[in-house]
Amino acid sequence: MALLDDLKWRYATKKYDPTKKVAQEDVDKIIEAARLAPTSSGLQQFRVIVITNQELKDKIVPIARDQQIVADCSHLLVFVAWDKYTTERIDGQYDFITDERELPRGRFGSYTDRLKSLYLSQTSDENFVHTARQAYIGFGMAIAQAAELKVDSTPMEGFNPNMLDELLDLRSKGLRSVLLLPLGYRDAENDWLEKMKKVRKSTDEFVIHYK
Amino acid sequence: MALLDDLKWRYATKKYDPTKKVAQEDVDKIIEAARLAPTSSGLQQFRVIVITNQELKDKIVPIARDQQIVADCSHLLVFVAWDKYTTERIDGQYDFITDERELPRGRFGSYTDRLKSLYLSQTSDENFVHTARQAYIGFGMAIAQAAELKVDSTPMEGFNPNMLDELLDLRSKGLRSVLLLPLGYRDAENDWLEKMKKVRKSTDEFVIHYK
Repeated sequence: MALLDDLKWRYATKKYDPTKKVAQEDVDKIIEAARLAPTSSGLQQFRVIVITNQELKDKIVPIARDQQIVADCSHLLVFVAWDKYTTERIDGQYDFITDERELPRGRFGSYTDRLKSLYLSQTSDENFVHTARQAYIGFGMAIAQAAELKVDSTPMEGFNPNMLDELLDLRSKGLRSVLLLPLGYRDAENDWLEKMKKVRKSTDEFVIHYK
Repeated sequence: MALLDDLKWRYATKKYDPTKKVAQEDVDKIIEAARLAPTSSGLQQFRVIVITNQELKDKIVPIARDQQIVADCSHLLVFVAWDKYTTERIDGQYDFITDERELPRGRFGSYTDRLKSLYLSQTSDENFVHTARQAYIGFGMAIAQAAELKVDSTPMEGFNPNMLDELLDLRSKGLRSVLLLPLGYRDAENDWLEKMKKVRKSTDEFVIHYK
């Protein structure tokens, strides 16, 4: 099905059927869409955590404004981003890129020098504003891929990132949580949003033309 | 074609054929994908500007690190986000949502009160960190839709947002520039990146499993 149809089909599922599990093959495709997403300078500043353990999902409920979808979903994806830029992270990714392309290491040296001079002069929090943004592109791709597979999902910012970082021990890995994406299958009967009209501003209001 | 194939096909085009124009029908679909993207609390904190005027595209080149793709592309999309949250913006969107769903206005009053108490206690810059993030979801959808249509695009953060805001007189509209997305058709022969392998971290490195 075409992307636009998938985007019209999807909605932020508010109630999952906890007995229905998403096939691993579908979860793999959803993660693959996020992995293939473009990122700033190709640095891939984000990662995806997959949680299926019920006890761990239950522990996240109180951190996520008591939203039961976190416990009832089949798979909980956590999008996490680099806490900051480092010379090692930038050089590491570019060494990897040049190796994969069979180019000499340092081929993009003047470019990575500019990245380092820009990012390493910023605070970690300023870095994270930028790395977190990248996670949103992959998040969009994952949402679209789930819809293509008729897997329900719920884009979620409503949680306490600091508490989730602590629970998942993310800071020690140089990562910070950005977004949650529960995956599963809707409990249509008990989902108040499922029957509601999808509302978006009109195209006339959404688009601004500069002739 | 499936989304994963589209994502493998696309790349950040570095050289456009300036004689080839994207059909309006395709541009409309790309914008529609962005319009349908989910946003935090359904507030649709971002807009898309479409620029085809050659003189205006030329003026953006020096603001965008002298990247000629901005001038050579067929259509230049500028993703812009709200400069800050206001009571009017939050209530306006929720009045619109309730009207569209034929619900009484104020139906989500306790929810919008919580949004207002959260966002209006922040600075404008803190607000913009959040509104800008939303633009990235729609940006991802637009990139995916372009690829589905075999339209080339270039995800771009490399420009001076303050200078672009001034050129496009965005601040007076309560908007700030976030991202550029040139659309068009590649000049394959003169595009250094076109022949290069797409490089992404392996799935093993990209995914973190919590069992």
